[in-house]
Amino acid sequence: MNETTAWLQVPPATPDDNARQAAEARQANLTKPPGALGRLEETAIRLASLQGTGRPCVDRVSISVFAADHGVATEGISAFPQAVTAEMLKNFARGGAAISVLARELGAELEVMNLGTVNDTGPLEGIVSLRLGPGTANLCREPAMGEQQLARALHAGRMAAERARLGGAQLFIGGEMGIGNTTTAAALACALLNAPPALLAGPGTGLNAQGVARKTEVIRQALDRHSEHHGTLLEALRRLGGFEIAALAGSYMACAHMGLPVLVDGFISSVAALTAARLCPGAESWFLFSHTSAEPGHRTVLDALDAQPLLDLGMRLGEGSGAAVAVPLLRMACALHNDMATFAEAGVSVKDA
Amino acid sequence: MNETTAWLQVPPATPDDNARQAAEARQANLTKPPGALGRLEETAIRLASLQGTGRPCVDRVSISVFAADHGVATEGISAFPQAVTAEMLKNFARGGAAISVLARELGAELEVMNLGTVNDTGPLEGIVSLRLGPGTANLCREPAMGEQQLARALHAGRMAAERARLGGAQLFIGGEMGIGNTTTAAALACALLNAPPALLAGPGTGLNAQGVARKTEVIRQALDRHSEHHGTLLEALRRLGGFEIAALAGSYMACAHMGLPVLVDGFISSVAALTAARLCPGAESWFLFSHTSAEPGHRTVLDALDAQPLLDLGMRLGEGSGAAVAVPLLRMACALHNDMATFAEAGVSVKDA
Repeated sequence: MNETTAWLQVPPATPDDNARQAAEARQANLTKPPGALGRLEETAIRLASLQGTGRPCVDRVSISVFAADHGVATEGISAFPQAVTAEMLKNFARGGAAISVLARELGAELEVMNLGTVNDTGPLEGIVSLRLGPGTANLCREPAMGEQQLARALHAGRMAAERARLGGAQLFIGGEMGIGNTTTAAALACALLNAPPALLAGPGTGLNAQGVARKTEVIRQALDRHSEHHGTLLEALRRLGGFEIAALAGSYMACAHMGLPVLVDGFISSVAALTAARLCPGAESWFLFSHTSAEPGHRTVLDALDAQPLLDLGMRLGEGSGAAVAVPLLRMACALHNDMATFAEAGVSVKDA
Repeated sequence: MNETTAWLQVPPATPDDNARQAAEARQANLTKPPGALGRLEETAIRLASLQGTGRPCVDRVSISVFAADHGVATEGISAFPQAVTAEMLKNFARGGAAISVLARELGAELEVMNLGTVNDTGPLEGIVSLRLGPGTANLCREPAMGEQQLARALHAGRMAAERARLGGAQLFIGGEMGIGNTTTAAALACALLNAPPALLAGPGTGLNAQGVARKTEVIRQALDRHSEHHGTLLEALRRLGGFEIAALAGSYMACAHMGLPVLVDGFISSVAALTAARLCPGAESWFLFSHTSAEPGHRTVLDALDAQPLLDLGMRLGEGSGAAVAVPLLRMACALHNDMATFAEAGVSVKDA
């Protein structure tokens, strides 16, 4: 399969301004003091504009988790051994992972895709396997991906988003799993934001201070190695990213093309969202942000996206788990918007002049 | 009916320390980096200890909304006319209020109790009517409640909590509705915390700066009027509180007596929780805090309770709405705790030494 990246040139869809205005007017007439539902009001209005409807709804949620290994793991930048990526794929297949539990709770579709692990898991029930390679190359020494690998990873994300849309999803969530991917995401964010490694490197799954210092140094080496290419988006993604980060970015761009709202998860997903917003300006109109991760670099990435996530629960798991946890807030925002009585319907007096 | 307040002397139930330790051990063995689910882990552990079980569950939720009017409303301290309290009771009866919508979304039991409105609504389907009086007296000039009114309001809350428990509730939420009740709650909080009115007075349903200044002055007058009684808890509640605030405090204490976890809503509910914790030391062990209100005084009350709410969505509606919005977080915390695989079950490698 010889993929190209020509599809990335498609412009994003445009949110519906009339639907937004109608939703704002409705919120002002519901039986509550204006603004009293806070961010739930803003969320309902946003979803109405993205879905182009007076009755926003996110009952049907599709979650795609992209898993892959990272060559940089050999530099000793993770608290967990690299074997965990493949082991966790088996855990996804058996329904024991956090995102498996959350997807069941939400009644959401869950698709897990193996884009390339070091350890071959063999066929797993319910896991789509693409195996673009046995993990990426070590970005400290060479580009993480070849050009075909990058194109195929982006395309894998696009296909996941299109399957979600065809399946009737009203909201897309991307998740990731891959030992070492906070290092990769931090390196990519440094290149995109021209930020120092110390600002983006954090404990990930549980490094101590010494481990974070080592990780910071590894990111610095990687940035030096590829410094001539930081300004070229796709090259930066190819050299510093990972299969799952590219797939997430591809899925987010495809959602923006199709006009399917995205609920972005944590640090790694937000770096993918930033990449998507840079590659496809305006794509960010389709992104809602679910939570602020405990991974300290997340704040920098969120600020670059002008994002104010709904939740701040100290989560740092990935898999799309933080986004899944925020879905009920979106559903309740929609229910309140659609089902509350207006002042006129209820015969309730309005605010004193 | 001649109620007494002797039942307030019952000590609170004791959370189960063995269940807490077992839950902590289980969280450490689930297939995620330790602590990666953040506050969801802490919430599951807390619920396990309160419910005395290895499998915490809040599927069955009972919501009691207490409504009443406030004599102080004649001082012009609300953005909405006093008629709204009775009008909103009709809206609750028809299922058009925010809490009506949220209770349906959650599959929660919703009970609404009219403790005394200025305008008589007549019988309303689904509304329990006690009518302790046509609202309270104006606390600027006299005690808000008589002794029997206070005892009956506290008892009404106790009965609501006991009905919830008998109905099988695993979690209790109290809500309130009453034009003027941020003024009443602020005055009571000032007395309990020996805090200046300016720290607790806020815009409520939507006062401008001039209105907040007026409200602050009204609270100052009320505190002066009853200054000899600030140190006597029940007297402070009787003189400065309201029917619904006393009922909330009574319900929270009864929950603590029975060992039924409470999810506390916003500013007014938190003042009731503070009152309950002062009247029944240790009751606060049974309180979880759902959200930080946009009402600025809430932070002061939360700090006094050493409470860190789960959500901060800029909500300021009352009715129990903020607590209802947080229920799915508790449910997902339980599902993750109960249903995720352990490292051993999944054959996933543990953290590197």
